[in-house]
Parts: sequence; structure tokens; C-alpha cells
Amino acid sequence: MSDWLDQVKWDSKGLVPAIAQDQATGEVLMVAWMNAEALALTIKEQRAIYWSRSRQAIWRKGESSGHVQQLREIRLDCDGDVLLLSVEQLGGIACHTGRRSCFYRQLDESTGEPVWKTVAPVLKDPQDIY
Amino acid sequence: MSDWLDQVKWDSKGLVPAIAQDQATGEVLMVAWMNAEALALTIKEQRAIYWSRSRQAIWRKGESSGHVQQLREIRLDCDGDVLLLSVEQLGGIACHTGRRSCFYRQLDESTGEPVWKTVAPVLKDPQDIY
Repeated sequence: MSDWLDQVKWDSKGLVPAIAQDQATGEVLMVAWMNAEALALTIKEQRAIYWSRSRQAIWRKGESSGHVQQLREIRLDCDGDVLLLSVEQLGGIACHTGRRSCFYRQLDESTGEPVWKTVAPVLKDPQDIY
Repeated sequence: MSDWLDQVKWDSKGLVPAIAQDQATGEVLMVAWMNAEALALTIKEQRAIYWSRSRQAIWRKGESSGHVQQLREIRLDCDGDVLLLSVEQLGGIACHTGRRSCFYRQLDESTGEPVWKTVAPVLKDPQDIY
């Protein structure tokens, strides 16, 4: 394995979390996982390519939806166990629900017991995405 | 357990990753982990309180360094397994290395084989922090 891949502290399953952040707005779009193969492919193809834990397969983000994340920059944290991608989000939608970001639920404490409240609109019907 | 805590999809160890993002600049500062107790304390005290996997204990961010993260907002992603905190970073330093953000290493592909290159300055000697 290459030095730069070896410097990532892969967990016991060979994975690390990868945060995708919008390069223009700074908005955090989503978090997915990468193994060494996914990271190497991400650099090679200059687009976000993850490891799907549910499908146990390489996941070329945007392959079926068109919502490709073009890579601008990639960073590694001090512990070496989290990646941060700065991306251009094609189509302006990262989430499979048709929302811009996967982080569309905000904790609302205004009514006593906190509740997770949806605060971002669906921009595109998920049925039209997949 | 409360509904809002129960709606978080804790992993097999009872943890989820929590991203701390600077509320003013949008910069991603760090990623740590939370269990239900840490999340409940974070809401109660309105500051980031994590679960330290290395120490296996509640970690009041900033307790020894003073670099407290005051909570502005907290979000949950579509899968319910990642938290996103918008925080005010006291002291302007999140990283134990004395840097603003833990994501201070950027992949540099300018010289052939990629290398993780440090791109952010140390603002404070770590020995003066802890």
C-alpha cells in the first residue's frame, strides 16, 4: 500500500468516515465511509467514491442519480481516522431524500421535550432520482 | 430513553460520530464520538460533550484546555447515525495540536505520489494547552 494510504488509520473493518462539504458554501452535505480502494479511486477519478456498508461494494456517488461530487480538496484529521472532502455537488442535491444535505433534521427544544424537526425542503422527488 | 435519543441509530458500541462545525465560518473543526449520555449532557449544558473512546469516559471538551465548544445547533442526518454540531469555538482552537481545526493535513498531488501536507499553523503550543 502507498504511504499516503497507509497513513490513514483504517478501523478494524478497514474503513474511515468521510465528510463531504460543499466547497462553495461550507455546508456539510453528508457522511459516508471509505476503504483504501475507495479513497484511491476518489483521488484517481477526482470524484467522491465511497464504500457502501449496506451493499458491501464500491459506491460511485451519483452513478445512478447524477449527483456526482467532484473533488476539490481532501483533508485528513490529526488522528488520521476521518477524511474531509471539499466537493462540488452536481445537481445541488447530496441526500437520497432529494434534499441538498443529509443533515436536514434539527433538534428543536422550543416545546419542552426535544424533537428532531425537518428544516430543509425536498428539492426533487426521490422517485425521480433513482 | 427519550424519543429523541432513541431516534439516533447508535452503533453496536452505542456510539455515533459527531462533527463540530464553526458556526461563524462553516469550517469543520473536528470529529469525535457521542453516546446517549454525552448527547443528553451536550443538550443539557449547551456545550459539546463527547465520549472518549481512548479513555472510555465522558469528555467535556475544553475542560482542561479551556477550548469549550458552545452549542448553537445540532442536526441529525437522514440515516440517523451522524450528528452535526454548530458551535462557537472558544479560544479559536479545536485541535489538541494547537491548530484551529483537526483537519490540517491536505493531500498534495503536485509532486507525483500524493503526500499529506500540513497546511495550517500551530496557533498555540500544545504544552501550553494541557
